[in-house]
Amino acid sequence: MRAAARLFLTRSYVSVGVGEVCAAADVRKGSFYHFFPAKADLAIAVIDLHAAGLHERLDRSAHADPAAALFAIPDAIGEIQLGFEGRFGQVVGCPFGNLGTELATCEDAVRAHLSALFTSWVGKLAATCRRAADAGLLRAGTDPDRLAHLLLACAQGTIMLAKVDRSPAAAIPEALRELINAHLAEEVAA
Amino acid sequence: MRAAARLFLTRSYVSVGVGEVCAAADVRKGSFYHFFPAKADLAIAVIDLHAAGLHERLDRSAHADPAAALFAIPDAIGEIQLGFEGRFGQVVGCPFGNLGTELATCEDAVRAHLSALFTSWVGKLAATCRRAADAGLLRAGTDPDRLAHLLLACAQGTIMLAKVDRSPAAAIPEALRELINAHLAEEVAA
Repeated sequence: MRAAARLFLTRSYVSVGVGEVCAAADVRKGSFYHFFPAKADLAIAVIDLHAAGLHERLDRSAHADPAAALFAIPDAIGEIQLGFEGRFGQVVGCPFGNLGTELATCEDAVRAHLSALFTSWVGKLAATCRRAADAGLLRAGTDPDRLAHLLLACAQGTIMLAKVDRSPAAAIPEALRELINAHLAEEVAA
Repeated sequence: MRAAARLFLTRSYVSVGVGEVCAAADVRKGSFYHFFPAKADLAIAVIDLHAAGLHERLDRSAHADPAAALFAIPDAIGEIQLGFEGRFGQVVGCPFGNLGTELATCEDAVRAHLSALFTSWVGKLAATCRRAADAGLLRAGTDPDRLAHLLLACAQGTIMLAKVDRSPAAAIPEALRELINAHLAEEVAA
């Protein structure tokens, strides 16, 4: 799974063959197919491996005060992206966005699995945005659920643009902080 | 090019072979390689085909008043995405985001071409955001260049999430309008 995660991230899903994954992980094809009847099952396992890392980071700030919890979102995403940049020498994308973009129209089980994860993350982010709204931090008229969706979308788009533009990973949490700042009440932002 | 554009959009670049493109377009492989020495050249030609459509739509509102020009951005992107939804029955992604995500780490000529296009679009959007700022439409502290980048990132992320979630294309311009609203001055937004 770790070998596949690395190969998918630095290339793409379709361009990496099962034989190549087995060679990189030093396992036989027979054992591979025992654990992953189809290549799509491997994609789902790789997604869950990355998802565990994101969950752990998002849950870390669950009990922080509302403002700290809100700004912990860019920090969590930034930490993951800086980690990839450190390992691979450049921004290589979000594992969920990469596989979602490549496979949503072709591998419906992968698409549905990612969609359920995105929904659960929007739910987590929405809970944080709702706490910020209840604490009077957000601009009047800000819908916490819509802001949560916008944060996830902006993270995905900013990561993709950084990958294509070869921008430093640090630009990603910075853009998310700007998005949050735009939604703060005037007296909080000032 | 049109056959390749359709196949890349509904599947992915790597999963579509040159032979399949030739069969769909009813041309011989020899003629294909005369025009496109490598498959990456075809990707760049397909990108330019889609880019012409986006340019035309973005330029349409160049002389509109500042507020109309700002909200013409979600309209232009929405029109393209509703068009794809009509043709393919679902959101299939942004052609630039799809190819950028899949190829940025593997095909550097494609990456560089897309990066130059993204830079030119951020420049166009920034000019519109600057006109809005000069007209007093934007919230104090809003940097027009940063807002332009955020608009492009949010468009890309929202399109990708709609593709994975099978959301209607109409949700895409709606999210971009919300992003713009969050950046309007209080007295304009009210």
